[in-house]
Amino acid sequence: MTVFAIVGHRARTDGEFSLNDLPGAGRMDVLCRCVNASLFLSHDLRRDVECGLVLLGEPKPPKTVLFKGSEIRSLSPDERSAGALIKKALSIPCGSEFREAAPGVFVRNGGLERLLAEQAFAVLDEKGTDIRTAKEVPGAFLLSDHQNFTEEEEALIRDAPRYSVGPACLHADHTITVISNEIDRRTNGWR
Amino acid sequence: MTVFAIVGHRARTDGEFSLNDLPGAGRMDVLCRCVNASLFLSHDLRRDVECGLVLLGEPKPPKTVLFKGSEIRSLSPDERSAGALIKKALSIPCGSEFREAAPGVFVRNGGLERLLAEQAFAVLDEKGTDIRTAKEVPGAFLLSDHQNFTEEEEALIRDAPRYSVGPACLHADHTITVISNEIDRRTNGWR
Repeated sequence: MTVFAIVGHRARTDGEFSLNDLPGAGRMDVLCRCVNASLFLSHDLRRDVECGLVLLGEPKPPKTVLFKGSEIRSLSPDERSAGALIKKALSIPCGSEFREAAPGVFVRNGGLERLLAEQAFAVLDEKGTDIRTAKEVPGAFLLSDHQNFTEEEEALIRDAPRYSVGPACLHADHTITVISNEIDRRTNGWR
Repeated sequence: MTVFAIVGHRARTDGEFSLNDLPGAGRMDVLCRCVNASLFLSHDLRRDVECGLVLLGEPKPPKTVLFKGSEIRSLSPDERSAGALIKKALSIPCGSEFREAAPGVFVRNGGLERLLAEQAFAVLDEKGTDIRTAKEVPGAFLLSDHQNFTEEEEALIRDAPRYSVGPACLHADHTITVISNEIDRRTNGWR
């Protein structure tokens, strides 16, 4: 099982956004692409992957939307498709425990602090260990959207192991794709 | 310079499609994601990359839309942004030579046969040489959208060198991301 979690610093926390303007919903488009990169294979889904979105925008932050590859149905690779499921999840009342909004899509109140208390995450850092040379690939990665982690967030992940995927600074979804490729290779005896 | 070309087997060849339904425009969403994967770095563009889209859908196939990283302006990473530029390019009259539809975005009549006559392309094949072990990374890659190459297309690329990015069968845009990572690493002395 691999977990990717992405912090959406301004991503809306209700369903009142237009699928025709995902960037305008606090850069929800970034998070939609991360869902795609986490879960899609060609003509298949990565059933052993979960993708958590930590949403910190208005009006009700923080919320977490979780996509479970093992249970997902009716997700297409286009941004709108993931956006529609996120919108659906943000449109239902939720409490402190995950509630299913659609098959494989869950929502709860709570953000990064809770997520980090539940599971250890590695983070991406250009000065981190090259993922290719890492002895083992971690089972959970935390990424940020188009903004850097805040000081408060950095304090929470101060002790997290740090990895790099290469010399170029990539979008979060592209980073997920490179990590997934490394995992695919190791799982199948390629290096 | 790296060139990625993607064949969109059913992608529309006029501007009469809705940005609200890119999948319905012959899976234009796939091509939009390939433009993103080819050209975007975090807060920057890959200026040394070109991305060509070979469009074979109705009503006026074949057409080719070319994005030049060195000249692009006003491209955002969301699918709609690339879709809007493609739509603009397909909305202007074009002839057999590339015509600029927007900064860095060009369109012409003509398809794969012409493209292959102008430049040698490597193709992706799960039985091909592992890109990580390749002595050199080719400068141009041809990929297909969600459909396989047709028999006629396969005949045109029969002699092309073949590469694999890993054991899993990936979407075209994810494949482009993995290839770009390999190029980034070699360019910067990482392996």
